[in-house]
Amino acid sequence: MVTSPVVNTYPLSSYTFGTKEPKMEKDTSVADRLARMKVNYMKEGMRTSVEAILLVQEHNHPHILLLQIGNTFCKLPGGRLKPGENEIEGLKRKLSSKLGANSPALQPDWQIGECVAIWWRPNFETIMYPYCPPHITKPKECKKLFLVHLSEREYFAVPKNLKLLAVPLFELYDNVQRYGPVISTIPQQLSRFQFNMITQ
Amino acid sequence: MVTSPVVNTYPLSSYTFGTKEPKMEKDTSVADRLARMKVNYMKEGMRTSVEAILLVQEHNHPHILLLQIGNTFCKLPGGRLKPGENEIEGLKRKLSSKLGANSPALQPDWQIGECVAIWWRPNFETIMYPYCPPHITKPKECKKLFLVHLSEREYFAVPKNLKLLAVPLFELYDNVQRYGPVISTIPQQLSRFQFNMITQ
Repeated sequence: MVTSPVVNTYPLSSYTFGTKEPKMEKDTSVADRLARMKVNYMKEGMRTSVEAILLVQEHNHPHILLLQIGNTFCKLPGGRLKPGENEIEGLKRKLSSKLGANSPALQPDWQIGECVAIWWRPNFETIMYPYCPPHITKPKECKKLFLVHLSEREYFAVPKNLKLLAVPLFELYDNVQRYGPVISTIPQQLSRFQFNMITQ
Repeated sequence: MVTSPVVNTYPLSSYTFGTKEPKMEKDTSVADRLARMKVNYMKEGMRTSVEAILLVQEHNHPHILLLQIGNTFCKLPGGRLKPGENEIEGLKRKLSSKLGANSPALQPDWQIGECVAIWWRPNFETIMYPYCPPHITKPKECKKLFLVHLSEREYFAVPKNLKLLAVPLFELYDNVQRYGPVISTIPQQLSRFQFNMITQ
């Protein structure tokens, strides 16, 4: 038998959540965001971004930690790499900035695991694809999603303007309207893993 | 940098396609299929099925080989394991039955690779999920999709009642109406791989 990679998932209640200073979004509209992307592309070339899938369990079902901005928009923690930055180190830096405490001693142990998906942005538009479309020789962004293996206990500091939600896979699945194409297909991308639900 | 697993893909034109005797579907309707599933479940317990993602390239874009039955319904080659059968050996047996020549000397070299998705059928119904839904303790089927690494040249014998199609990822993506939830999200599941397109 082919063995699936095993992922330990701990109960949401084993993690502690505090708050920290707000982390404002750099852009106030989609148009601003795409315009800033274009300016950065001129300076630095293709944008590479890295995002984390942080898993917990509740009622023996995997849940993903999402950052909610305002009342509807959800995103994975992560962000843009600096030019030439290592993906793993860059994702750790972004996770500490988004969810780590200000004190270095309280930083979670970010164990970056498997790359589970790669998305491409062919143009300065919101639409992305899980492949680089034919005839696109200069994609504008490559976004990589990584599984992050959380330790049994961690402290997360959530910026005061954001909410951190634990969303079950069954809520994400087939829910592109609410979560968009990238987040709503995470259940399919995680299906090959075997979740070891630790209940304590 | 995290390196993505590399998959060599060869042009469709490097493969040869012949025909062989028809392989009729065991069931003539969805109701018949679900009824047969129920009978088998009583005898043998949960059904395990294995299916193959066979990749080729055209115009430097990955294409997947699908078997078309009639004018609309498409499926991946594969099928049900015998009770206790090894997944890899069972998938090779099914691939030879569906696409191999009758002569053992002409059988393709089926190199079964990564498991890319696992789907669960909680009830004797058509709907499947990429996780075992909460509170389902006795799922009725577990279906595993494997990447199969094809050699540079192979001969496929296609049953006369079926058509073998090479369908590009961009046609499958976001096309649940035509291909169903399992096949239409293969592009997302393959996004983490790096395709080495060999053009010859």
